[in-house]
Amino acid sequence: MKTHNFSAGPCILPDEVFKKASDAILDFDNSLSLIEVSHRSPPFVNVMSKCISLVKELLNIPKGYSVLFLQGGASLQFLMVPFNLMKLNGSAAYLNTGTWSTKAINEAKLFGNTIVVGDSSDKNFNYIPKNYSVPENIDYFHCTSNNTIFGTQIKEFPKISSPIVCDMSSDIFSRKININNFDIIYAGAQKNMGPAGTTMVIVKDETLNKTGRDIPTMLNYQTHIDKESMFNTPPVFSIYVSMLTLEWLKNKGGIDYIEKINNEKANLLYKEIDRNSLFTGTANTEDRSIMNVTFSILEKEKEKIFENECLKNKISGLKGHRSVGGYRASIYNAMPIKSIKTLINVMQKVENL
Amino acid sequence: MKTHNFSAGPCILPDEVFKKASDAILDFDNSLSLIEVSHRSPPFVNVMSKCISLVKELLNIPKGYSVLFLQGGASLQFLMVPFNLMKLNGSAAYLNTGTWSTKAINEAKLFGNTIVVGDSSDKNFNYIPKNYSVPENIDYFHCTSNNTIFGTQIKEFPKISSPIVCDMSSDIFSRKININNFDIIYAGAQKNMGPAGTTMVIVKDETLNKTGRDIPTMLNYQTHIDKESMFNTPPVFSIYVSMLTLEWLKNKGGIDYIEKINNEKANLLYKEIDRNSLFTGTANTEDRSIMNVTFSILEKEKEKIFENECLKNKISGLKGHRSVGGYRASIYNAMPIKSIKTLINVMQKVENL
Repeated sequence: MKTHNFSAGPCILPDEVFKKASDAILDFDNSLSLIEVSHRSPPFVNVMSKCISLVKELLNIPKGYSVLFLQGGASLQFLMVPFNLMKLNGSAAYLNTGTWSTKAINEAKLFGNTIVVGDSSDKNFNYIPKNYSVPENIDYFHCTSNNTIFGTQIKEFPKISSPIVCDMSSDIFSRKININNFDIIYAGAQKNMGPAGTTMVIVKDETLNKTGRDIPTMLNYQTHIDKESMFNTPPVFSIYVSMLTLEWLKNKGGIDYIEKINNEKANLLYKEIDRNSLFTGTANTEDRSIMNVTFSILEKEKEKIFENECLKNKISGLKGHRSVGGYRASIYNAMPIKSIKTLINVMQKVENL
Repeated sequence: MKTHNFSAGPCILPDEVFKKASDAILDFDNSLSLIEVSHRSPPFVNVMSKCISLVKELLNIPKGYSVLFLQGGASLQFLMVPFNLMKLNGSAAYLNTGTWSTKAINEAKLFGNTIVVGDSSDKNFNYIPKNYSVPENIDYFHCTSNNTIFGTQIKEFPKISSPIVCDMSSDIFSRKININNFDIIYAGAQKNMGPAGTTMVIVKDETLNKTGRDIPTMLNYQTHIDKESMFNTPPVFSIYVSMLTLEWLKNKGGIDYIEKINNEKANLLYKEIDRNSLFTGTANTEDRSIMNVTFSILEKEKEKIFENECLKNKISGLKGHRSVGGYRASIYNAMPIKSIKTLINVMQKVENL
């Protein structure tokens, strides 16, 4: 019996991706392992360029944008964004919707005037602030599209004239987005894209080089645009597996297809949470994430029973983040509907015990 | 016939490491793939701590030092080092022995007074400067122990009272070093340690927190010391494979054993280069690297013949870096003596044609 992996990330990837990644470590090219080939060799240069093409195709990225594969996770982006976009004596607006937004805000403060225009910390981030106003003449506005820990998701992005930067680590490739509305999008790979170890950045080229700052080479997006993500040795394995995952997504039917399935999967689970007398959802209903479903149990004495029943059914990774408690089912692109049905069956069984 | 992989990095790793890494992608823990497990799960926390222990054991690291596994390659260290060690209005001394040293120097200049105390660019970096003097009262001295591109290696490190920082990317774990003589050692994994995607940093704890700078969280060594390299999602796969490679090295007999073998391998190849009338070594004899053997062919008309003969014998990755030309045989820890003998046979065959 296969484990149902509800981990928040690193997380489940498609079975065929595991299989192909495992094979490539034994034989990638002409009897060499994937992890011993030079990143400058044609077979790997081809992987990098195919990976970038797939991103552009799947997300329908218009001309004037570059796609980068970097290292350091979203956490390094928290400082690269202000380093590259916040002018000397400039300012930026941030929407605070959770732990990761808060971290991004703290890094921005090192660079200049950081205005928090909306903040849902008053209710432990269980909702997305709305009707906030973003000041004019800021260098950029920053938000987090999906809050992995709290299970909330921005359904509508603000319409403003300033550049918009968005951390999409936990919902990239899960739903249609209009790239034209964004200037920088970044995402750690380890949810819908691949294994840990690489971070995708989509940059509108004309947004850059306006700050007057001396930016260290590795932190300058322009470096990586000019060198096509090969300024230094890229994380070969993580990029290869991201390519495999994006190929899988394309073959499935792309974002249109996966968004439909993701909505079906999320609806199924939320419907059960709302119906089942034993459980309650954590996030504000209209802000519920289609990637991370947070909920808790109403009868404390049934907690252990539920957790044991999960264990028996090989349901793993369901523990909520310590700052929220309860449970969190992360149901990323690669999560089969069968696993969600298994979880629902367990929820129903424990309700009726 | 297996390919003889002389790539400069990413490069050859032990066969058993490829095999175990491939297996772990299919089944790491309880039917989960290595690349879908949470980095906070006990099995992976155990991998991280085992990897750190192996580094400490193999390099005989004394108390008061921390071992970190980060991202971003040596290139990110080029700026993290001055960010963490160069005081406001401080200064640092650098030894310029090649392309990578030069890049490190350029980053340091963004932070303060950067004094180049020795420089071998006058002879295209084919030697290691000696008898240079390092000024007193600098914040640190920086050098590159092994110059992958040029095939030179520092055999004796200077004895100075200031902190010493060393980029050991291409010879870490190849020879005995006395950690007590260094304050920071850093190394991209993709030579002797594992696949691309992680960077090991060894830091003497007391060297830190003396600059008066506001350091962004991700660039602050103290962040990663405090969080044991788990401040954000680490590059799970690269760390796991590094652990496998270090286990292999330990089982072989550790640094004492591998240093002996590395010397034998390098001597064998240099002896042939010196004997063979068709080839000549590139680097100054006393500074020759035991990891990267650079040489060129004396009769231009035999170039193609030599290269075809290499191809026929499945010798790959021998092309010299564009800034040196000629050939480079990278003979890292995992390179079997058999591959070196194959190369020598080809050299002899072409000499006699």
